[in-house]
Amino acid sequence: MGQTGLQLSEFGLGSWVNWGTSIGLAEAKEILALAYDAGINFFDNAEGYEGGLSEQIMGDAINALGWSRDSYVVTSKVFWGGDKPTQRGLSRKHVFDACHAALNRLKVDYLDVFYCHRPDIDTPISETVEAMSDLVRQGKVMYWGTSEWSAQQITQAKAVAKQRNLVEPMVEQPEYNLLNRTKVEGEFRPLYSQGLGLTTYSPLASGLLTGKYLDGVPADSRLARSDYQWLREIHLGEGNNAKQSNIKRLNDIAGELNMSLSHLALVWILTNKCVSSVILGVNNTKQLSQNLGALDSREKLDAELLTTIDEILGNKPSEPERF
Amino acid sequence: MGQTGLQLSEFGLGSWVNWGTSIGLAEAKEILALAYDAGINFFDNAEGYEGGLSEQIMGDAINALGWSRDSYVVTSKVFWGGDKPTQRGLSRKHVFDACHAALNRLKVDYLDVFYCHRPDIDTPISETVEAMSDLVRQGKVMYWGTSEWSAQQITQAKAVAKQRNLVEPMVEQPEYNLLNRTKVEGEFRPLYSQGLGLTTYSPLASGLLTGKYLDGVPADSRLARSDYQWLREIHLGEGNNAKQSNIKRLNDIAGELNMSLSHLALVWILTNKCVSSVILGVNNTKQLSQNLGALDSREKLDAELLTTIDEILGNKPSEPERF
Amino acid sequence: MGQTGLQLSEFGLGSWVNWGTSIGLAEAKEILALAYDAGINFFDNAEGYEGGLSEQIMGDAINALGWSRDSYVVTSKVFWGGDKPTQRGLSRKHVFDACHAALNRLKVDYLDVFYCHRPDIDTPISETVEAMSDLVRQGKVMYWGTSEWSAQQITQAKAVAKQRNLVEPMVEQPEYNLLNRTKVEGEFRPLYSQGLGLTTYSPLASGLLTGKYLDGVPADSRLARSDYQWLREIHLGEGNNAKQSNIKRLNDIAGELNMSLSHLALVWILTNKCVSSVILGVNNTKQLSQNLGALDSREKLDAELLTTIDEILGNKPSEPERF
Amino acid sequence: MGQTGLQLSEFGLGSWVNWGTSIGLAEAKEILALAYDAGINFFDNAEGYEGGLSEQIMGDAINALGWSRDSYVVTSKVFWGGDKPTQRGLSRKHVFDACHAALNRLKVDYLDVFYCHRPDIDTPISETVEAMSDLVRQGKVMYWGTSEWSAQQITQAKAVAKQRNLVEPMVEQPEYNLLNRTKVEGEFRPLYSQGLGLTTYSPLASGLLTGKYLDGVPADSRLARSDYQWLREIHLGEGNNAKQSNIKRLNDIAGELNMSLSHLALVWILTNKCVSSVILGVNNTKQLSQNLGALDSREKLDAELLTTIDEILGNKPSEPERF
Repeated sequence: MGQTGLQLSEFGLGSWVNWGTSIGLAEAKEILALAYDAGINFFDNAEGYEGGLSEQIMGDAINALGWSRDSYVVTSKVFWGGDKPTQRGLSRKHVFDACHAALNRLKVDYLDVFYCHRPDIDTPISETVEAMSDLVRQGKVMYWGTSEWSAQQITQAKAVAKQRNLVEPMVEQPEYNLLNRTKVEGEFRPLYSQGLGLTTYSPLASGLLTGKYLDGVPADSRLARSDYQWLREIHLGEGNNAKQSNIKRLNDIAGELNMSLSHLALVWILTNKCVSSVILGVNNTKQLSQNLGALDSREKLDAELLTTIDEILGNKPSEPERF
Repeated sequence: MGQTGLQLSEFGLGSWVNWGTSIGLAEAKEILALAYDAGINFFDNAEGYEGGLSEQIMGDAINALGWSRDSYVVTSKVFWGGDKPTQRGLSRKHVFDACHAALNRLKVDYLDVFYCHRPDIDTPISETVEAMSDLVRQGKVMYWGTSEWSAQQITQAKAVAKQRNLVEPMVEQPEYNLLNRTKVEGEFRPLYSQGLGLTTYSPLASGLLTGKYLDGVPADSRLARSDYQWLREIHLGEGNNAKQSNIKRLNDIAGELNMSLSHLALVWILTNKCVSSVILGVNNTKQLSQNLGALDSREKLDAELLTTIDEILGNKPSEPERF
Repeated sequence: MGQTGLQLSEFGLGSWVNWGTSIGLAEAKEILALAYDAGINFFDNAEGYEGGLSEQIMGDAINALGWSRDSYVVTSKVFWGGDKPTQRGLSRKHVFDACHAALNRLKVDYLDVFYCHRPDIDTPISETVEAMSDLVRQGKVMYWGTSEWSAQQITQAKAVAKQRNLVEPMVEQPEYNLLNRTKVEGEFRPLYSQGLGLTTYSPLASGLLTGKYLDGVPADSRLARSDYQWLREIHLGEGNNAKQSNIKRLNDIAGELNMSLSHLALVWILTNKCVSSVILGVNNTKQLSQNLGALDSREKLDAELLTTIDEILGNKPSEPERF
Repeated sequence: MGQTGLQLSEFGLGSWVNWGTSIGLAEAKEILALAYDAGINFFDNAEGYEGGLSEQIMGDAINALGWSRDSYVVTSKVFWGGDKPTQRGLSRKHVFDACHAALNRLKVDYLDVFYCHRPDIDTPISETVEAMSDLVRQGKVMYWGTSEWSAQQITQAKAVAKQRNLVEPMVEQPEYNLLNRTKVEGEFRPLYSQGLGLTTYSPLASGLLTGKYLDGVPADSRLARSDYQWLREIHLGEGNNAKQSNIKRLNDIAGELNMSLSHLALVWILTNKCVSSVILGVNNTKQLSQNLGALDSREKLDAELLTTIDEILGNKPSEPERF
């Protein structure tokens, strides 16, 4: 994971959406067992996923499977813990409360990675760095990181840690996929040589890169859920015509290569060596198997194809300016 | 709270006076429940209040109410723990002993804020900073602060912490009200830009700003208690004629605005953005409800009125000298 | 205690000699109760005293007396823990082992002061400073100090602590009495302004300053014990004629002042403001009462008398050289 | 042990090979009892020895023998913990996991020394130094060191520790014997003045220096084991003719001195004052007794003989270049 010694599998598995609600213990165990046997060792959670239920079910399932604690990596994130003012954000109080709550839900002695789920502009970065660093020194957390922080914020956190002999954040968790390349390939560029690792989420852009929304919104899909209208608006609302057209062209290319659009999208991420692990979000073992199948199509993405994709999408961040 | 991420409610509730003595468990629960439901999340204690009894009853009551630990802030203060030489002051020994005793009385795993209740000129400030910092690093305390320290003492504590990579004090608890503005608006001025938060006590000046002492001392009032003669002397003893006359004029102004003098006094404090939380001291739910009512009169204090008040009192600290 | 906030009583009580062997639990309780009631709050021990038995009996007795832990100061010292190579000295291993063993014997959660009983030239001073500092940071020890270290060694320990942000030693425990003034009044002089406190032992020079050896060695005295022949040789062996003659003259002076020689010797130490506490070693309540009586004769030692004593003894260290 | 206060016996005892497999609890107790009674206080283990079984049996045996914990030194090493990617190497995660597992297997509260069993080029040295340092600060480890690291790697670890106020590695565990002198007498030379201690293994070069392979490979010897063919190849494979010839000459010299080749080899190591302890690997009490007998032949190795040995072997590292 970046410049750390933590060895993450190329694919990780996240509990975002449905875990603990429509996915119960039995199904969670099946999915996790399949993942573990396929070599996946990175399991991603957050206090904010389904109000803690997803962590609870992940913890119960891993516990029931009896894996050796040193054979897998389990994470949590702090930010959205509850409705009260002291139950959210990155104050020392909430960072500690959230860590202890996650350890309880996951039934482990330590978190492998503890992420700040978003930046908190109401808390000085130095306070969060001190709190995270203390959790590492106490042995409750092995590594800490950020999610959806800006390059400036990550740089500041690293600077504070260096200045005060505290533990640095070593990993960022951004969205990254064919449709969203700005941060990973642009803004974060100066950070990789400083050791930043990436665990990326939404590899299929909330399902858009499965191609299933090319002909409308299926009734059983995530974007059909009433509580995800905000996400539907982002992806399928007005002004998304060009995006849909690009997806169609990628879909055609995948077809010519005898692979699914999903596989094209997943393998494309793996070609980026700055990515430590790609977090998959699945609802069942079938989806997971399908996603894992992408690894078989690995060699199909050669340099020429990558250039073609860049030209179709036109979203590759430009090189940094040299004045 | 100052430049921290701790989100305090505008009003806090203190256990000073009567808690654990005339206020028993049942009444404590009623008062706390009312406060909590009204959005108050900051509960202030000290080892020196009623010899620890007030903390005991506060802890029993919060425990009985079953609040989630991450939804409220509970504090203690160290200084007056007992009669023996090692049971008082800010030595490392007493700071640790007092912290452990407060955790036991309050039945919590950590204190949100631990205050030095007064400066201790017999203990080097560096020793106290080291002890407080160690408690924070151990996870027993989230933030530490001071109460009735001078600006010089706070500055020294912060300097020691910075020099040795220790945890800085982030909050001071001074008395602050219409009649006592010297420290908060004067002496502490250079500290706010360094992140100092304030939790202020005695917003009604021991009841003087309720107006209840304008016509003598009621038999059931605090200043009538034989053990508070020292406080009676301070407020109502010789040389207080001008003060009483000023209170009368403020009372008239409040009447013209159709609000009580208490509400005027409370809302006036809230206009000072350097104040993180105003600690209320109440004997029953009725007093608490009355105090909370002040928030409804908020908009009545406009810039013109504030100037009038300044002129009546003549106690606004002057601007710092520029040479 | 020096430049710390720890408030020690002028007299302390040590468990050296006889505690746990000829002094059993019942007698220990009697002596400790008398001391505590007289205001003594400092109780001194070491792993090396009677092979740990003295700490055991002190711990049992204090436990049985039920004192509040914050009302007294209890210490231990590390150096002579056992016969094996790893059971002695000031290695990190033995410092930790000895601390844990002392906590067990004394039945307390922390030691107020943990002393290095002697310098250990086979262990780098930095290793001992790091180990002691870690014990303080872990909350197992409040303060640490040294016993019979040289000024150079103490200075080096303080320098290492300052350089590495570790906890400094704050107290030294030397022998100090009318007959032995070299270290306290000479060698240590530059250290007092750096905050060094002193807890001194052997105020009566192994009994010589009671005058009981002026006419030979009583059968029931310490110097008559077969295992203390080395101490007898030091005090009463050849070349001690001048010392004995000086003791006689001091005895005469005490007689003229209507006080015992012991009282003169004890009060004389208290006139040195660099001494934080004078450790008494007693065999029974009678001896303790006699020693405590010294405080009544306090005012008899005026400046003139101190000068006379200096002249008789001729052992006052000279002023530091100014070149 | 180097510039530490840890007092190691000249010989140590390792659990490498056979402990927990062919050596069971009863035999382990016999061997350990004999060693302890002979003054050996250093017992060396690793998570990688027989998959943890050797530590298990060592822990059970020591526990059954009831030795006082402060009278002996027990170690472990981290690197080869399991087959999964997160179960090996020197990441913070695996360092912590391996420490906790070793404490469990050995049934102790702390490890005296915790070694990095090999360098891990996939983990930044700074991450390992921070993790080891945190374990020391937490009291779970007394000292940490390395095994088979290069001088450059050790130097870097020490530099990181000094720069960040962390705990330095104090000991290296290399192979060292008459046939392998490069690292100990050459590469590591600049490190001794910086305090590096050495605990060396393989004093008899996997048995070669017992002379037992001079006439072929005995059926019950280690090099006859099918899982040690790699070691057989190293020592007895092609290109080892000169080595075998040298061993014969040393064997002759030993014979002339009326001592065994083994004793010559062991005593020769003890003449190197940079070596803190020589780890013996034995299968039974008889082998241990034979090895311990070497101490009786100590005075036979005089300066003249050492020179003769150097000339025979021709493997003494040259002096460092002065330009």
